[in-house]
Amino acid sequence: MTKPVNGSGPVIIDCHGHYTTTPSALREFRTAQLAALRDGTAPPAPATIRDDEIVESIERNQLRIMRERGSDLMILSPRASGMAHHVDDPAVARAWARASNDLVHRVAGLFPGRFAPACQLPQTPSGGVEDAVAELRRCVAELGFVGCLLNPDPSGGYWAAKPLTDPFWFPLYHELVTLDAPAMIHVSASVNPSIHDLGAHYLNADTSVFMQLVRGELFERYPTLRFVIPHGGGAVPYHWGRYQGLAARLERPPIDGLLRNVFFDTAVYHQPGIDLLHRVVPVENILFASELLGAVRGDNPATGAGWDHTRVYVDRAGLDDAALRKVYEHNARRVFPRLEAHLP
Amino acid sequence: MTKPVNGSGPVIIDCHGHYTTTPSALREFRTAQLAALRDGTAPPAPATIRDDEIVESIERNQLRIMRERGSDLMILSPRASGMAHHVDDPAVARAWARASNDLVHRVAGLFPGRFAPACQLPQTPSGGVEDAVAELRRCVAELGFVGCLLNPDPSGGYWAAKPLTDPFWFPLYHELVTLDAPAMIHVSASVNPSIHDLGAHYLNADTSVFMQLVRGELFERYPTLRFVIPHGGGAVPYHWGRYQGLAARLERPPIDGLLRNVFFDTAVYHQPGIDLLHRVVPVENILFASELLGAVRGDNPATGAGWDHTRVYVDRAGLDDAALRKVYEHNARRVFPRLEAHLP
Repeated sequence: MTKPVNGSGPVIIDCHGHYTTTPSALREFRTAQLAALRDGTAPPAPATIRDDEIVESIERNQLRIMRERGSDLMILSPRASGMAHHVDDPAVARAWARASNDLVHRVAGLFPGRFAPACQLPQTPSGGVEDAVAELRRCVAELGFVGCLLNPDPSGGYWAAKPLTDPFWFPLYHELVTLDAPAMIHVSASVNPSIHDLGAHYLNADTSVFMQLVRGELFERYPTLRFVIPHGGGAVPYHWGRYQGLAARLERPPIDGLLRNVFFDTAVYHQPGIDLLHRVVPVENILFASELLGAVRGDNPATGAGWDHTRVYVDRAGLDDAALRKVYEHNARRVFPRLEAHLP
Repeated sequence: MTKPVNGSGPVIIDCHGHYTTTPSALREFRTAQLAALRDGTAPPAPATIRDDEIVESIERNQLRIMRERGSDLMILSPRASGMAHHVDDPAVARAWARASNDLVHRVAGLFPGRFAPACQLPQTPSGGVEDAVAELRRCVAELGFVGCLLNPDPSGGYWAAKPLTDPFWFPLYHELVTLDAPAMIHVSASVNPSIHDLGAHYLNADTSVFMQLVRGELFERYPTLRFVIPHGGGAVPYHWGRYQGLAARLERPPIDGLLRNVFFDTAVYHQPGIDLLHRVVPVENILFASELLGAVRGDNPATGAGWDHTRVYVDRAGLDDAALRKVYEHNARRVFPRLEAHLP
């Protein structure tokens, strides 16, 4: 779909981007924070970052690519691997989430109509969800965030947390439902040497959570709760028949019922994958995404474009204009209703 | 592909079946074994199982379905979730692997030309690989097994083992290469409540191991080592572009190079998944499999056949006869050269 110059095409909303190009002062703050934790000294003051540093870091990277590829609005969250929830200190997690979230909030303010912020939650392997609830409320209710990243494995690759269907998580779901905001399921860095984050942990988390939802009864309790499972749903659409059969074996309802609450993004980096996603998952449940910048690098020889230029694949997936409008715009607006305040 | 009655079609080799229907005496032995471990008492004697019990358990189940679906030969390994490598006692693991392997060996002997055995290895979370090497040698060199199942996560869902590219595993690879036998990558039960075995752990293991191989240099050291990654390769073919991009980002060779040593099976339970597999992975690297009996149950309404009746999908994947012969027969014979002794 070529977007007409007169603007009659859909608003292209990329529901999954990360602020991976933060000014160096943020990482220096993080380094100082971890050093203070290690040494038992006072935590550092938040980083001082000027607006022009933020503008430059976005102009040169995310926004440059968005212009080249014709996307209008990106839901921007902090760098996923940087969330590092495996650092098991609640105060550190709170300060780090606040610093990271305040920065994506500033990006959205500096580029109105271009970025809508989604927040990192201050999760830890041993802690409860109270801090996550408080930061979610601050970000969404006070600052206009449109959703959050929810990490189902704060241990960083060792899967020590309870399944997302466990009552442990219910206070967070209560808040999400109250705020009418969805959660994108997204783990952070793997600190397990057997599990690569970008090449295994991210996809495995998507797969594991979907199966948790097949087994559990979460949406019977929270019928308006919405999860976006990124990276095309991990292994799930490729194994859709397996899940249909497993649901029968486990005497659970047909998995189609989950599609009232579960959505998949298009961060799948080749044409056959995107084609399969659209063949298996109803178009109402697919949200355009690129995951930039940038899990993968380099160009796809079949297209001459970057591997993560997922518009190329979506445009060639054989969808009619009405379906493309759903994937590019309408589904994101439905799943993230607070996007309305950020539309250009 | 309809198999002609005169036998001129390919030999249909199912490279991935499990003896999930063992006579109850085997499970009683296992229960007694675990009770003795718990109580510190003497281990039980191996179960006494009559030939007719084995024959009945196979005739009514695996062989009945093979006849219905027209497969000729199945590579049969012990029940995967039953391997239970998380039980961290080397003597128990040795006795359990031996009992399980001796039983699939008896199946192969009772049904010549119908079943070729693949062995369970006596792995444990804390142990080395010496016991696995010894059992592999016994099974392959003495008993005619054609390969083994290699568990990359003996901890059962907590991923405590070293990656398969670590020298920890090299003695096992040396033996596999010496015996010219491949390993199928296959985890066992998940004892992690967040990770369902059939719906997450199995697929995640396939995905994680492929990424370990992308990062490591294993096949530069063992150029003739062969791995079969089951369940259609987990999430890998669906995310093939992601792996191509990640290999570039990590400055590793193009992932196509792994296809000299890595093969995928067709245990993917719907047409779109099988179509994607064939669109992405060269036909030389795909081995027919059903994973019966039986990860999933029930029938696929699109075919009227069982979800795990994967011949239906493979036959409809648009392959010509030469390609189908590779998937059904020739690839398995090339990857598992010791199959020759078991062919009908």
